[in-house]
Amino acid sequence: MLVAGHPTRPVRANAAQDGIVVIDQRQLPHRLVFETLATPQAVFAAIRDMWVRGAPLIGACAAYGLALAVNEDASDAALEGAAASLRRARPTAVNLAWALDRLLLRLRPLPAAARRAAAWSEADAIAEDDVACNAAIGRHGLALIEAVAARPGRQGGPVNLLTHCNAGWLATVDWGTATAPIYQAHAAGIAVHVWVDETRPRNQGASLTAWELGQAGVPHTVISDNAGGHLMQHGRVDLVMVGCDRVTARGDVCNKIGTYLKALAARDNRVPFFVAMPTSTLDLSLADGLREIEIEERSPREQTHLTGRAADGRLVEVQLTPEGSGAANPAFDVTPARLVTGLITERGIVEAEEGALRRLMEPRA
Amino acid sequence: MLVAGHPTRPVRANAAQDGIVVIDQRQLPHRLVFETLATPQAVFAAIRDMWVRGAPLIGACAAYGLALAVNEDASDAALEGAAASLRRARPTAVNLAWALDRLLLRLRPLPAAARRAAAWSEADAIAEDDVACNAAIGRHGLALIEAVAARPGRQGGPVNLLTHCNAGWLATVDWGTATAPIYQAHAAGIAVHVWVDETRPRNQGASLTAWELGQAGVPHTVISDNAGGHLMQHGRVDLVMVGCDRVTARGDVCNKIGTYLKALAARDNRVPFFVAMPTSTLDLSLADGLREIEIEERSPREQTHLTGRAADGRLVEVQLTPEGSGAANPAFDVTPARLVTGLITERGIVEAEEGALRRLMEPRA
Repeated sequence: MLVAGHPTRPVRANAAQDGIVVIDQRQLPHRLVFETLATPQAVFAAIRDMWVRGAPLIGACAAYGLALAVNEDASDAALEGAAASLRRARPTAVNLAWALDRLLLRLRPLPAAARRAAAWSEADAIAEDDVACNAAIGRHGLALIEAVAARPGRQGGPVNLLTHCNAGWLATVDWGTATAPIYQAHAAGIAVHVWVDETRPRNQGASLTAWELGQAGVPHTVISDNAGGHLMQHGRVDLVMVGCDRVTARGDVCNKIGTYLKALAARDNRVPFFVAMPTSTLDLSLADGLREIEIEERSPREQTHLTGRAADGRLVEVQLTPEGSGAANPAFDVTPARLVTGLITERGIVEAEEGALRRLMEPRA
Repeated sequence: MLVAGHPTRPVRANAAQDGIVVIDQRQLPHRLVFETLATPQAVFAAIRDMWVRGAPLIGACAAYGLALAVNEDASDAALEGAAASLRRARPTAVNLAWALDRLLLRLRPLPAAARRAAAWSEADAIAEDDVACNAAIGRHGLALIEAVAARPGRQGGPVNLLTHCNAGWLATVDWGTATAPIYQAHAAGIAVHVWVDETRPRNQGASLTAWELGQAGVPHTVISDNAGGHLMQHGRVDLVMVGCDRVTARGDVCNKIGTYLKALAARDNRVPFFVAMPTSTLDLSLADGLREIEIEERSPREQTHLTGRAADGRLVEVQLTPEGSGAANPAFDVTPARLVTGLITERGIVEAEEGALRRLMEPRA
């Protein structure tokens, strides 16, 4: 997507293939800072500390991290060790393991001398596949927005979408997942307006999604995570579109903490609740998302402290809670399939139901 | 309640009856600052700007504000003018109008010369009635907590409550409404633990409820507003207890924005959802809360900016959102009666249902 008129991606390999350039997303929306990561350890830290975040982007960055490891040592032992290490950077996102496995599958059969070129080419392919995948999600999701806009008897005004967290281009290599239909609708001249959940405690909505939409000129309004139910009660949300970190064979959706509450409100108010899901996020080895998905518990400090821009322009961290009050910080929740209207995949829109999901994943002629 | 060992209330009249002392709650939890308000205009501003907040506390402060007006001019015209002005300080809380009407009812029949003493005595009575009311709510709600603690087959560990916003003693004259049962259970030696919703955008949970509970030594954990549903899915919440700003004849509950989402999650997970309601908050003139209650839309700046304590101890306001991103800030939502397990009133626990509520309010022998 464009940033101040320049085509920009949140990760790209440099020309010498000895480093990758990422946006340090912790500094958005206040500062746009690009950083070069030149070692697998630096990539590990950038994933762990959330300079980069979002399941597809984590996958692409991990793949490049493994390519950087191969630069240093292309032996079997080094390859397996680096992959095992990168795999531990974040526990929940299935794309991390998926991307590493895809690279390992390509590299293991090769002699060590051939691995470097193959690693970079495969990591690039993972990145480009993500872009193509999201563009396809955008096309399929666009149809949902077009259908709302064309609804007979509809009053004037934009199609109102609500999204949670950042499943935008900053969470992917380009387009985003949940935002891809929105960007395509905007480009097609359909009037859209996005309610952007702030998404506490890390504020990815208020800081990343709002920034992205602003750069693209898409009308949007930031709201507290508490407000979405009220807006749905009053008919002010036409469609919910969110991303996901892992989806089970039954269609249970693991996504940013709070997604479940919006799904409940959408059901209670008959608002369609769609999840943008690259099929790489589908984990057919799991059935019951509530029982089987490990939920990352992050540092309480993310809940008790917050960084923003002071009046003088400096980024300042402030404490929100009293001394002595502890905090809990579960990072994800699971929305049961029964609350999901549909999953928007690169292969089309599919029901959150095991038969439909298994058929979707069958090899095609 | 005690603050650092001293009995403290969020409002009290001074001895000369020419001012009231309130806590400037905007500075909590970082600083405990008492301010003297000596004019009805100062009281109006303190209510409007939320130095004081919470329906019962607003009612008591407004009553004292009218007493301060009577100090200045006890004529009929001045009395009615001051009441009309104070009534506009906040649009949603029914207690504001209720307290002013109670004072007017007492003062109107009196000659102007008799009004000053009567105004202060009636305002004091409103404050003391609130304390007695909340103590009674505490006794009735305590039974619910005792019942959970005594449940056969229950594992060890505390009774886990979840609360939203601040319906604590800082929102009342003492005890709080939703917190009164918790304080009484804690005093009775029942192990309790409170999940404290942060309550964006004004963070009354993270700043006020957490501070209150900490002062009282009640174990608690601050969570994002997004987390409650996840905790309920995993059996980590035994009871939800919240306050309310207005309840309709049908039992629809208007309370802090986001309450509705927690009620949906409680229903979905069979967690009892109780609302502490002084009967002064019941508005029998309304039926359908969603259609009939005016929801206050507050400044977007409360959503885009936030004040916390920097590392050097200063209170610093920081911006969270990108330049150019707007925000919406609806302050309350309505939880339909069908999601409410029961209303804890000073007269006992009652169903959120019109017949039960009208019977509750019938004059008693």
